Amino acid sequence: MSSSLCSILIILMLFSVCVATGKNFDAYYIPKLSAVRASVSSKDFQTFFYNQTLDHFNYRPESYTTFKQRYVINSKYWGGANAVAPIFVFLGSESPFDVDIKYLGFVVENVAEFKALLVCIEHRYYGESIPYGWTLDKALKDAKTRGYFSSAQALADYAEILVYLKQKLNARHSPIIVFGGSYGGMLAAWFRLKYPHVALGALASSAPILSFPDIIPRETFYAGVAKDFLEFSFSCHETIRRSWEEIDRGSSELHGLAKLSKTFKTCRPLESSSELKDYLKSVYADAAQYNDPFSRPVEVICNAINGASPRNDILRKIFAGLSTYRNSTCYINPPPTPLSNTELGWHWQTCSEIPTLWSITNNTMFQPAPSGLDKFVNRCKRDFGIAPRQHWVPTYYGGQDIKLILHRFASNIIFSNGLQDPFSYAGILKSISNSVVAVYTAKGSHCLDILPATKEDPIWLVKQRNTEVEIIRKWIATYHADLRAFGKY
Amino acid sequence: MSSSLCSILIILMLFSVCVATGKNFDAYYIPKLSAVRASVSSKDFQTFFYNQTLDHFNYRPESYTTFKQRYVINSKYWGGANAVAPIFVFLGSESPFDVDIKYLGFVVENVAEFKALLVCIEHRYYGESIPYGWTLDKALKDAKTRGYFSSAQALADYAEILVYLKQKLNARHSPIIVFGGSYGGMLAAWFRLKYPHVALGALASSAPILSFPDIIPRETFYAGVAKDFLEFSFSCHETIRRSWEEIDRGSSELHGLAKLSKTFKTCRPLESSSELKDYLKSVYADAAQYNDPFSRPVEVICNAINGASPRNDILRKIFAGLSTYRNSTCYINPPPTPLSNTELGWHWQTCSEIPTLWSITNNTMFQPAPSGLDKFVNRCKRDFGIAPRQHWVPTYYGGQDIKLILHRFASNIIFSNGLQDPFSYAGILKSISNSVVAVYTAKGSHCLDILPATKEDPIWLVKQRNTEVEIIRKWIATYHADLRAFGKY
Repeated sequence: MSSSLCSILIILMLFSVCVATGKNFDAYYIPKLSAVRASVSSKDFQTFFYNQTLDHFNYRPESYTTFKQRYVINSKYWGGANAVAPIFVFLGSESPFDVDIKYLGFVVENVAEFKALLVCIEHRYYGESIPYGWTLDKALKDAKTRGYFSSAQALADYAEILVYLKQKLNARHSPIIVFGGSYGGMLAAWFRLKYPHVALGALASSAPILSFPDIIPRETFYAGVAKDFLEFSFSCHETIRRSWEEIDRGSSELHGLAKLSKTFKTCRPLESSSELKDYLKSVYADAAQYNDPFSRPVEVICNAINGASPRNDILRKIFAGLSTYRNSTCYINPPPTPLSNTELGWHWQTCSEIPTLWSITNNTMFQPAPSGLDKFVNRCKRDFGIAPRQHWVPTYYGGQDIKLILHRFASNIIFSNGLQDPFSYAGILKSISNSVVAVYTAKGSHCLDILPATKEDPIWLVKQRNTEVEIIRKWIATYHADLRAFGKY
Repeated sequence: MSSSLCSILIILMLFSVCVATGKNFDAYYIPKLSAVRASVSSKDFQTFFYNQTLDHFNYRPESYTTFKQRYVINSKYWGGANAVAPIFVFLGSESPFDVDIKYLGFVVENVAEFKALLVCIEHRYYGESIPYGWTLDKALKDAKTRGYFSSAQALADYAEILVYLKQKLNARHSPIIVFGGSYGGMLAAWFRLKYPHVALGALASSAPILSFPDIIPRETFYAGVAKDFLEFSFSCHETIRRSWEEIDRGSSELHGLAKLSKTFKTCRPLESSSELKDYLKSVYADAAQYNDPFSRPVEVICNAINGASPRNDILRKIFAGLSTYRNSTCYINPPPTPLSNTELGWHWQTCSEIPTLWSITNNTMFQPAPSGLDKFVNRCKRDFGIAPRQHWVPTYYGGQDIKLILHRFASNIIFSNGLQDPFSYAGILKSISNSVVAVYTAKGSHCLDILPATKEDPIWLVKQRNTEVEIIRKWIATYHADLRAFGKY
């Protein structure tokens, strides 16, 4: 095995464990779309590159280096600067624009009605927006270069591009609304808080902005996963709850791991029972996070578990759930494939400033487990030579006592969530003030509201989106009235 | 002349020109204090050093370097964490703590009544808070090291120390009010805007937060200086207005510069009439900025100008004004003395991100002049190899359309000003909302309200301070009511 392949393998293993213990925010999953309303496709966008400042916050010689940052614009529906028509900005998150575009549904579907200019900016270090024109892999291997890869720099990038664009378009008073989902939702909310002079409002979809130390308990995530399974089926929840000891028991037998490997059709022989348990945890977590009303993964898994026979063979039931949901030739540790941009970049982001680690307490369908911070820190040190700055995000962006702090400060943020998504419990589920509001659905999943609409959308999802549209419409109407009152329009 | 002395001389000349064309915010001047009410002196403070992060916004290997940052605490009057008693924090600006302490008047005089903990944090790169334990001179000579000297880093320093202190004191819910004057006032206002989760409110005294490109016209500063002179005496204003041409005429004569040097008792022969004119501009600007009701420098200068004889000798009148006000053995280009920490540091800060340049239009007592941006940029390039990032401050902190932007966002900021101070016209002179308010006096000068109280304080100054105290009292009362409503207290 070549050394480079070997190193990819190591990173892959690490990431797969990271997904299990420190759940990734990213919405990899897109529900089946039968009838997309969106009338804007990628070919409607014009691509531009902005000469972005590498380091906004320092004045070292290297800080002045610039790199090409990609942004795309669709001006088909824009009402123009004279009409102070709005600018809708989708903030790129931990993926290249080509992936982000799949989440543009809500924004794209509303540009025409709002006569909005549509802008999408790629997050630094993803896609084609990597300093020195390097690959992300190369940038991440260089300790100095990867060091500029941070959320504060990304927000400053957005501010710089938007200030530039408004000037270029002579659209000083056109209100900007920023949109984002998951980590991108965190960025959207933080952007409105840090740059209220650039963005009038933000829609932060499925943004777990409270998932940081000392803000919410560490156990909310897996408790949320278990809740989804329990809600759908008590017996399924029970089977999963009992399966962990069954796996431990099986692995302790003679040739136990070999038997488990066979039962679970693993791509390579299991080296420990934890490998299997971590994998299954990640499968259930994924299913809960993306438990949308179309593909209903929790229902799929549970129906398979509940329907499998023989009825007393817990492990066969668990495998039935897994194989029906994932439907692969083999499971766990598949042959290595090149890591995606998102996998590479997010690993750095969690190791530098966004360590999202969750513990498990009693009374869920999982075995109790600590958050694994020490292990995680050691991995970060090994891969990048640093430990996460765990307290920086709460220090810079806040989060503690958020209602107390923000109910008399800030305005115009929608925090949208779907309660099927276990990350929603690290989001804002109660309105903070009249204009910093929580809009959630009991049956919604991760980022569901900003995905493209379909003909099969249930009424509660249609209502959620309509509510969001109405709130944004109100922000803009109030702003237009203010403009007139201030004699600017 | 040794090369190091030579380089100091060059910097000094540059700074003296910079003072004339790009006026310094710093309040060097302290009015005569006949009876200071303050009951806390420097010996009441306990000194601490915090291991501060060199670079909060990046994750480069060097970013993790720490340096000792000085902060001092007076806990004599604190009501304690259980009583959720407030924490008053004086944010250091462009000087060492030993200088800052002179501006602590207002804060010190109110700690007892508010039962507040008093904290004063030194700004990075000043006093004893310089990375690597270097001198500022040495730090500024190193392009990499000086690069971390920025306002955003300074605010993050304050946030990190205050979050740490609250945790250490177990005072999570004690409200923090930040105070600052001049550049420190800008920092206080920006701190409330960027870190509302750390500070409940800010008193920003004489903070010219609008003195950036495209926010206010560049001519407000010298127009404000001229206004002070015109208000006091039309004939004085006229004499000064006519003096510039008189200087130009004089310098164009045979041996004219030598004669002017003699008339104005210059420490070294004048090399150009501009040297004299720039110096006089800076004298008038200083007098206006610090035109307090005690020493009344504008009155002092104008009385000397108006009273000098012969009545038709304009230059003798001008010199009479200068010599009465400055009262020195010689004027302009005095023998070089070591530059102060403030002079050194502020030169860098103006060259990196706070280029405060003012132009002069017709109809003032000055000769029309451009802002001198090109010259200034060239000097910055020569001294530091960089041009100022002119648009960064408005991009990061805002300022354009500030009332429109903030009247539905933000809360709890007092912008206090005295209209004698020409910088006040780059400050906030109209309230933005119910709790982002302007409190100014027509006769006040730069930072006057936060200086120590005296028995001779005029009633309008006493009233201004009382208004500020009442506003802060209301913020804290509202916050305490919120705490109870939220069940935190």
